[in-house]
Amino acid sequence: MAENQNNIFPKGEKAPPEYFTGTAWVLGMIPNDPILNCQIANVVFEPGARNNWHSHPGGQILVVTDGVGYFQEKGKPIQIIRKGDVVRISPDVIHWHGASHGDALTHIAINPNTQNGIAFWMQPVSNEEYNGVKK
Amino acid sequence: MAENQNNIFPKGEKAPPEYFTGTAWVLGMIPNDPILNCQIANVVFEPGARNNWHSHPGGQILVVTDGVGYFQEKGKPIQIIRKGDVVRISPDVIHWHGASHGDALTHIAINPNTQNGIAFWMQPVSNEEYNGVKK
Repeated sequence: MAENQNNIFPKGEKAPPEYFTGTAWVLGMIPNDPILNCQIANVVFEPGARNNWHSHPGGQILVVTDGVGYFQEKGKPIQIIRKGDVVRISPDVIHWHGASHGDALTHIAINPNTQNGIAFWMQPVSNEEYNGVKK
Repeated sequence: MAENQNNIFPKGEKAPPEYFTGTAWVLGMIPNDPILNCQIANVVFEPGARNNWHSHPGGQILVVTDGVGYFQEKGKPIQIIRKGDVVRISPDVIHWHGASHGDALTHIAINPNTQNGIAFWMQPVSNEEYNGVKK
């Protein structure tokens, strides 16, 4: 459960349901600005929670600080991601991320090159897509 | 001691003595590339260790994941930084960071806008400067 995550940061605000399935929490750490061109947030996903399919015009890096989750790029298998993993996502690659079925996930999401835009949000990840993980 | 840090990531390589005083460890997490324009590393400073005075043409964000340390911008007092703190450093601001006297420090260092350069390294932080912290 989220309560077992390592608690480096406070949990933040409930993630917006238009972009997330299930319960997740977002803490803004660095707001976007035109000098750093970088936005950083900490996200805690409770088991089963995930964000919608989306892409970032400037790319994204995920730094997993606790738990076990899933990451999928469109057209590729779901990858299992764990505490200590770093995920590099190229600009415009359609993807989603979230917790696994049984464990929460905490990651820092780093969005560079925000002069190009931050995120394009698409449709939710269906249960069929989410359950497609190979165990 | 560094061994008490939360161990999300492996310790990495010993930090180069030309840019650091004392013992620190650097783990490259995301190498710089011309698509993400972003370099990310995890740094563990043992008590008393700090990096030299330096600046970043693209700015920097420090995400403190464990311990207690110091951060100082040129001409300002030393700030005490702790687990959970996020430090925003504007481009070209001369500064240093490191562990406190008694505790190790672990932070993720995020360097955006690397198309402008990554770091300009300057002189070591003297013991007199390091001991200038107001407790």
